[in-house]
Amino acid sequence: VPDAVITFLSDYGLADDFVGVCHGVIARGCPGARVIDLTHGVAPHDVSAGALALVRALPYVPSGVHLAVVDPGVGGSRRGIAARCADGRCLVGPDNGLLWPAAQWAGGVAALVDLAGSPVALAPVSATFHGRDVFAPVAAALAAGTLVERVGEPVDPASLVAVKPWRAHVCGDAVVARVVAVDRFGNLELDAGADDLAAAGLDGATEIMIGAAIARVGMTFADVADGELLLYVDAHDALALAVNRGDAARHLCVGVGAELRIVAP
Amino acid sequence: VPDAVITFLSDYGLADDFVGVCHGVIARGCPGARVIDLTHGVAPHDVSAGALALVRALPYVPSGVHLAVVDPGVGGSRRGIAARCADGRCLVGPDNGLLWPAAQWAGGVAALVDLAGSPVALAPVSATFHGRDVFAPVAAALAAGTLVERVGEPVDPASLVAVKPWRAHVCGDAVVARVVAVDRFGNLELDAGADDLAAAGLDGATEIMIGAAIARVGMTFADVADGELLLYVDAHDALALAVNRGDAARHLCVGVGAELRIVAP
Amino acid sequence: VPDAVITFLSDYGLADDFVGVCHGVIARGCPGARVIDLTHGVAPHDVSAGALALVRALPYVPSGVHLAVVDPGVGGSRRGIAARCADGRCLVGPDNGLLWPAAQWAGGVAALVDLAGSPVALAPVSATFHGRDVFAPVAAALAAGTLVERVGEPVDPASLVAVKPWRAHVCGDAVVARVVAVDRFGNLELDAGADDLAAAGLDGATEIMIGAAIARVGMTFADVADGELLLYVDAHDALALAVNRGDAARHLCVGVGAELRIVAP
Repeated sequence: VPDAVITFLSDYGLADDFVGVCHGVIARGCPGARVIDLTHGVAPHDVSAGALALVRALPYVPSGVHLAVVDPGVGGSRRGIAARCADGRCLVGPDNGLLWPAAQWAGGVAALVDLAGSPVALAPVSATFHGRDVFAPVAAALAAGTLVERVGEPVDPASLVAVKPWRAHVCGDAVVARVVAVDRFGNLELDAGADDLAAAGLDGATEIMIGAAIARVGMTFADVADGELLLYVDAHDALALAVNRGDAARHLCVGVGAELRIVAP
Repeated sequence: VPDAVITFLSDYGLADDFVGVCHGVIARGCPGARVIDLTHGVAPHDVSAGALALVRALPYVPSGVHLAVVDPGVGGSRRGIAARCADGRCLVGPDNGLLWPAAQWAGGVAALVDLAGSPVALAPVSATFHGRDVFAPVAAALAAGTLVERVGEPVDPASLVAVKPWRAHVCGDAVVARVVAVDRFGNLELDAGADDLAAAGLDGATEIMIGAAIARVGMTFADVADGELLLYVDAHDALALAVNRGDAARHLCVGVGAELRIVAP
Repeated sequence: VPDAVITFLSDYGLADDFVGVCHGVIARGCPGARVIDLTHGVAPHDVSAGALALVRALPYVPSGVHLAVVDPGVGGSRRGIAARCADGRCLVGPDNGLLWPAAQWAGGVAALVDLAGSPVALAPVSATFHGRDVFAPVAAALAAGTLVERVGEPVDPASLVAVKPWRAHVCGDAVVARVVAVDRFGNLELDAGADDLAAAGLDGATEIMIGAAIARVGMTFADVADGELLLYVDAHDALALAVNRGDAARHLCVGVGAELRIVAP
């Protein structure tokens, strides 16, 4: 399978050699695989953020094996799993909710295996680095054409651990939203969409209040003056806040998890 | 075109999934392309720094499609463009000056197209992530052999937006230079060359003054003692300052944009 | 040699274009080579840390050309070298100890060449960026099938510069260890192993003292409660300290190089 694609997402960061060593293991297991690093900058142990990044990336990447590791419970009771989805994509990683939104997006789980005792894992398996010893070799085996059913012990496909994604709610004439991501530019992504604005009667507004700050409603950064706050629909169809040529996170002094009330000015 | 090369430079950083998603889009559009990440560490929105990094990298990379995205005006009035240069290289990115030095280096622009309404862009095109929705798919199409003329609307090749690069000047017996880059090691690159030293009558000097500090003139770090300041010609033929096994930026308390006067001691 | 593998480790970081430019040079010299970035996050100039990361990664990566650059003495009297090891792996980099543990692991040096005046180096060779001008083109030539003996001047294989790795010692009933690495999660790796615990009569202990702190002895993070300190054997068979879902480096206020005394509580 010379053109098999493995995408790889983790919270490993790039300062250490975790990612590089996993690439090495993959190259040994499936020399022809092409590995696409989606990101390794997920905040350490932030399973929800990893799950969100993965499901959002899938529509833009080739179908293949999708390896994801955000795994604070490594070596404990959580399962390591591999799944084949209804659309043919394979998912590999810890069964802690990280893979659930991706599996839903891919049509649901058609086959699921528990990777404890996987015949393709490295030996011995360390207690703390399953990315290297279990997940990377399993991803390589799948990319090389091994069936999901052969890399672990089949379990009930409905047993994949689910997560409830964060979601804004409308409270009277306010949208109560949370910051789910802050990107390199300081743009704040909210767990709300344009429909939430409409539900609060704020559709069509040209200005709104975010706490004590006023934001203009626009399409893109250049729709407001330099340094001005903008509310827009971002590239993931989510409401987001930016400061044109500035940093909205610093401007509003908020980070991931912060709750914001959006109301009419 | 199995060996087509796409180089990719941006200010996206690696903490988010911007770069990974663009890689995914490219892999869908041109599975055989080899993508070389030049850097994604350009300071956010710093078009000049991105332009400088790109033109300096080109002599060292294979000819191919050169994708660059430092795009504070995304979604606004600035054009997205693709260019075929006289030497056959293709450039893709925002038309804000970022691509201009590279185009000059590559012999000038032979063909230029505006990417608004590009037939190879993703649909819909988001207002804020043209890297994913426009530039990456265009780069992939070019790598797959599509002609520049087919990925956008032809415009006047002379209309590419130009930038005036920073440049030191000689003022009497002083070189007045600016810091254009600080690298990971704290080395300071200046917008001056050995010719500027000569013009100020400082060629042949073994020591010079940088503000209130004294630097020895040498070829490489080990030419001075540990902790000592060195003036040298760096790997881009620019004057630069380093501290052997130290950090010149911290030593001199200066950063990008700082103006330095170089005079005889 | 379409499947030749080059692994690449350095202290270049990813904020600058050092790594990307080296990738470009390699792609020009050996278009078919697959480059695996092991890490570029070695602390600047930390030759010991780079040597340790390299030798630990080798068992997990395909055999090939192993390029490593942590080179504070670039352009000075230290040699640049390429080596063919007894097991067929090739090593390329500065001869400052960085490559020595890897060479030992790979069965010792079978052939060694000095890269001064290498016929495959770029011309001119800069004084400060041998990664680009010497080591990357040499690695590409080796990946393309050129013999080690053809890329430089043969020298005594026994002349490779050796390093003495850090190593804990047992002092009475204490293991005196040093922190050799702090990873992204704040886990502290020590220069000690389970055998050192045994030598100090601490094998079988379920709790130990680290300075004034108490750590539980376990296998993996989940063996202790959230926020609790854990002593475990990590994925490199080294003793290590972690805080479950926390950061041991912050918890203990220590960093690389810190000396820790491990005793019975």
